[in-house]
Formats: sequence, structure tokens, C-alpha cells
Amino acid sequence: MTSTTPDTRRLAVLGTGMIGTSIAIAAARAGIAVRGWDLDPEVARAATRSGSLAAAASLEDAVSDADLIVVATPIPAVAATVVAALHANRTATVTDAASVKTGIVTEVAGHAGDRLDRYVPGHPMGGSERSGPEHASAHVVDAIVWVLTPTDATDPARERQVGAFVEALGARPVRLSPQRHDRLVAFVSHLPQVASTSLMSLAAVEEAGEPDILLLAAGGFRDLTRLAASNPRLWSEILSANREEVGAAIDLYIDRLVSLREEIAGDAAASVERTFAEAKAARLRLAAKPQVRAGVAVLQVEIPDEPGALARITATLGRGAVNIEDLQIVHSPEGGRGLVHLTVAAGSVAAATDVLADGGYDPVRLA
Amino acid sequence: MTSTTPDTRRLAVLGTGMIGTSIAIAAARAGIAVRGWDLDPEVARAATRSGSLAAAASLEDAVSDADLIVVATPIPAVAATVVAALHANRTATVTDAASVKTGIVTEVAGHAGDRLDRYVPGHPMGGSERSGPEHASAHVVDAIVWVLTPTDATDPARERQVGAFVEALGARPVRLSPQRHDRLVAFVSHLPQVASTSLMSLAAVEEAGEPDILLLAAGGFRDLTRLAASNPRLWSEILSANREEVGAAIDLYIDRLVSLREEIAGDAAASVERTFAEAKAARLRLAAKPQVRAGVAVLQVEIPDEPGALARITATLGRGAVNIEDLQIVHSPEGGRGLVHLTVAAGSVAAATDVLADGGYDPVRLA
Repeated sequence: MTSTTPDTRRLAVLGTGMIGTSIAIAAARAGIAVRGWDLDPEVARAATRSGSLAAAASLEDAVSDADLIVVATPIPAVAATVVAALHANRTATVTDAASVKTGIVTEVAGHAGDRLDRYVPGHPMGGSERSGPEHASAHVVDAIVWVLTPTDATDPARERQVGAFVEALGARPVRLSPQRHDRLVAFVSHLPQVASTSLMSLAAVEEAGEPDILLLAAGGFRDLTRLAASNPRLWSEILSANREEVGAAIDLYIDRLVSLREEIAGDAAASVERTFAEAKAARLRLAAKPQVRAGVAVLQVEIPDEPGALARITATLGRGAVNIEDLQIVHSPEGGRGLVHLTVAAGSVAAATDVLADGGYDPVRLA
Repeated sequence: MTSTTPDTRRLAVLGTGMIGTSIAIAAARAGIAVRGWDLDPEVARAATRSGSLAAAASLEDAVSDADLIVVATPIPAVAATVVAALHANRTATVTDAASVKTGIVTEVAGHAGDRLDRYVPGHPMGGSERSGPEHASAHVVDAIVWVLTPTDATDPARERQVGAFVEALGARPVRLSPQRHDRLVAFVSHLPQVASTSLMSLAAVEEAGEPDILLLAAGGFRDLTRLAASNPRLWSEILSANREEVGAAIDLYIDRLVSLREEIAGDAAASVERTFAEAKAARLRLAAKPQVRAGVAVLQVEIPDEPGALARITATLGRGAVNIEDLQIVHSPEGGRGLVHLTVAAGSVAAATDVLADGGYDPVRLA
């Protein structure tokens, strides 16, 4: 056990895919030196193009002088790589980025012996539908929730080290037990993925007989099926690793669907309306919660639909030295006017509002 | 039967909620005079604040000199209001905006007698989670698919009139039979709504025992539950009106979920991966299809993350007289660089690419 919190000055990333390289980019931005290693030398080479890490010749080489080691391999290799890292460097703290925890923690515990105190299991809850180091970006970890699931054997000083590292990367550490983590992500991450893939899969089958079906697919359908474009191998591994919790969540989801289906079939309009009203109330409570990214605000501004209209509003904000974190045209303007949602840092709301008002706009804060 | 296509110079909107008032706003923009009526005088009064319509004292008053009447009441009142409109004005064409067609068409046919030739059933496939005239906007109908489901009795000249009206409003008329419309929307509109509400409803129940569950709800969960904030009364009416097709779609969806659940439980990783790969391929085909709006293209451009970066790119396009139809920052830039997706008219792709390249950008056409 170490009594003081170890510093993280040198990081090793084992597995330099999209998540591993994104962590490397965010760490380099925070002034941490990063060495990376991947089982596939091509992937490691591609990761060096991010400019954030030096490629190591071997796992041992990558971890040799590290203070912290992040294992970001595919799920089936995580436990073995964590154990190898604990053996290859006798002082460093080891964490991982796997999105399912219980099985990996059990497997590591079975092989790590008294080195288990240096292992702090983790799960950065960011990502995208894309994979590979070429899609890595600090945005993947910016302001996300990063779950840590320490075991009974985990040294609290090591846990503090990883928490400080997560915060240095701009993310938000949240502590849960491995079992609780796996149960909660089954509902809010794995089940939505299954629901989305199943819906897209059904529509694709129907499309064979009804070629016009996707012509009618508007925003709602697109929202619900966006996740269906995710990496099939990655998801097959995640669902397999969390199969009991995911199975239980799917069963409860099917129960809800069956019950709503019966209400609709029985023309129980009052029950259907009540079910919808309760879900709406829950969704509005969710919308009122801080987005996973804290510290931002959304301003709605109306603009005319003509060439240069966006240029004028972005130039106006540029003059006020306001950085636009995100910008979305809410309804595609074909004529008339457009609505723009600008996301800015919460600390920039006053400056943004002032400079927009000076420019003749009438911004409304939405969130 | 009229042989020439009637003009639409005077419009009556019966039911001035969100959809009715949005149609009024788009019609007024197209130079059409609009009178509106609502069973609730407060709603009609609120609709006049849009500046697009004059409130009529009665249904008869609203339709007296109209060339075209749009019925946009709640679904249970649509058929009776269509019949009343066909009787109150002996020459005008009547259409409606109900999102389920077969039952309404049958009911109108049973009461309209030889006036049925003037009825062109319709469904503007736009909307939002919001209701009420205060949330109306021309954006709700801009560039949407607007389905027309003429009956055997419908006068083709009347159908052409409504088609021309839809195009004058900036939307895209698509012709389907009422039965086919109801079957297709069950899959791409009603089932996604049921899937979204059921997921939110389940998470809300789980939240009672696991208060942290929504802390972990990232972008995927939010995407899948956005629709759950929709109007409960409206959806209870839609699902009831289309209960057979919706029931069949829910059953097929449950079949998919059960099958995926069995694959996961049986640890059939190869099958799970194949299911996901097929759904991914279908989703990418959908993404490559023209969005509901035809005639646009999407360019991806990388920009540095700093105040003024968006201003420079939008100014560059403005100099080329290229109108930006939509702009989205794909990864919120907090540091490093950002990716921007620019939607422009297909005819502007060459001009946009040239002017961006001259400005030092490297645009990639995505769709």
C-alpha cells in the first residue's frame, strides 16, 4: 500500500484502437508522456500519427517506466493484458477501459495474486460508432462519466491516482461496484444498443417486401437506429461478457412492450396515455439533468436562410472570442428562416448573449 | 370532376394546433390567404399570434370562401370534420393531416356521399415532440415527405391541386394507398415511438431502485428516448387508430429481440456479430440515402478548434455564394480539432468544394 497518491507523469497505453488512442491524445494534452503498444504493429503505427504517443516495441517496453498503465484492448484480451502488465512493471498502477467489469475483475483476481492492490478497474463511458486509431479524438473522453470499480483489494491511493488522472483528462470519475456497474450499463447502454439494432434489423427485412419503407423514415427512426451502425465485433464481445444482466434487461423490456401492445390491442386508450405520460415525465426529468458533459449551455438563435447568414453569426461570436462547442441547425431551412442551437461553455453564456444581442440576434437559452 | 387543376388562393385550416398552424405559416409564406378555426377559441386566438391567419368565428365562416380546406384536428375528430367541411363548402377541395389513414378514409366514405371526389386524404410527415400553436413553425413542414392517399373516388384534378399546394409549401408529395401508408408508418414511425417510450418507461421504473442509473445515460440512451417526450394524448390516439398494424409490428419487433436474446444467452458470438453486421450495413445504406429531403449533399471538413474557426469556414462558403442548408459539428471540440458536416444543395457541391479548397480546407463528400 502506498500512503501518498502516486503521480502520473508517464503513461502506457496497451491497445491503441479508438479508445486507447483517444486516451493517449487527452493525456498528451494534459502534459503526460505516453508510450503505446498494440498486438497489431500497424494499429500502433497508425496511432502514432495522432502525435500523442511513441510506439513501443513490446508490451514490456511500453510499460517499463510507466506510472500508470491503461489496458484498452478488445474485451477478451483485457484480463490477460492487465495481469501481464502487473507482472511486467512491479510498481505502476494498472487500469482498463473495458465496458463490462465483473468477469474481468474476477479473472484478474484469480491470476494477479498480491499484485491485485495495484489494479483499479475502469470504464470511460465515451465512444462513438467508429473504431480504429484514425477516429480517435480527445472529444471521446472530454467531460464523460468515467466509472471506477475498485475491488476490496484495491489500494485507495491507487484509486485516487486514477481518479486524478481521469480528472486531468477532463472527465468525471464515478465510483461503483463492478456488479452494480454491469447491471446499470445493461439498462442504459447495452439494452439501447440491442433495441436499436433490432429495430434496424426488422426494418431491413421489411424493406425487401416494401421498398418505399425507408422513404418514410424521418428523424425519429433515424434517432432510434443511429446506434445500429456500431462495431459488430465490439458489441458481440460486450453482450457476451455481460450476458446475464443484458438478458434480464431484454426480458424486462419485452415485458413492457407486451404490456403496451395489450393495452393498444384492447383499445385501453386511458392506460396507453398514462404509460406515455409517465415516460414523458421521466424523459423530461432526464433532459433537465446535466448532459454527460457538464459545464455547457445551449442558446437558440433564429437566422435568415441565405448565403452568409451562418457566417455572420459565427463571425459575431468570434469577435466576442466565444468558442462554439457545437452548432446545429435544428430545422433545415429551405426558405424563410433557420433555427440554430449553439453550445458554448457555461462560463461564456453572458459573453455570447451580449455579443449576439449587439449583432442584432435574439438568443434564447435552452439549457 | 374538374378537368383543370384548381388553384389554391384561399386556405381554411380547421384545428389550429402545432401542425395546423405550421401549415398556415408555410401557406402564408407562399402568398396564400389563410383563415383558421379551432373548437377551442383560445387555441385559435393563440394561432393568430403567428401572424399567418385570421381567426374565423365558426367552421362555416372559416371555409366559406376557401379553395382548399385542411383538417388538422385531433384524430378522433378528423373524419367528422372532413364531412362537415365537404358539406359546408360545396366546391372546395378538402384534405387532412391525420397520421393514420384507413379508418378515417372509410368513415368519411360512409358519410360523404357523392362529395367524396373532393376529399384528398393526406399526412404531412413532420412534427416535433411539442404541441400547441405556440410551437408552430414553417420548419415543421419544410422539405418533409407529405403522403397523399387518394381513394378510388378522389378526383385526379383535386389530387393535383393538393400536390401543388404541398410543393408550394416546400414539402414533397408522395402517393400511397391508405392501407400501405398505415402499414409502413407502423414500422418507421409508430414502432420507434413504442420502442422509445417502453425503454424510457423501463429505465424510470429501474431508477426507483437504482438512483444512479441515469447518471450513466450517455448519448445513445438519450437518442433512443428522445421520442418518449412526445404528446401522450396524440400518441394514444394514433396507436389506437392504427392498432392492428402497430400490434403486428410490435410482435415482429419482439420476435427479433427474443432471437437476439437467445443468441446472447447461448453465447453464439458469431450469430450475434452477424446480426449486428447486417443491421449496421442496413443503417449505413439508410445514412447514404438522401435524407427525407432529396437534392442535398454532405461535405465533411476538418477545422481547428478555436474561436473564429467556424466563422472562417462559413465566411468562405458565403464568398462562394453557397447556401449552407445544415451544419453540424460531429465531435464537440474542446481541444484539438473539430469535424464539421456541411449540407449543401447537390447542385452546389462543385462550387462548395472549390471555394473550400481555395480557402485551405480539404472537404470530403460523405453523401
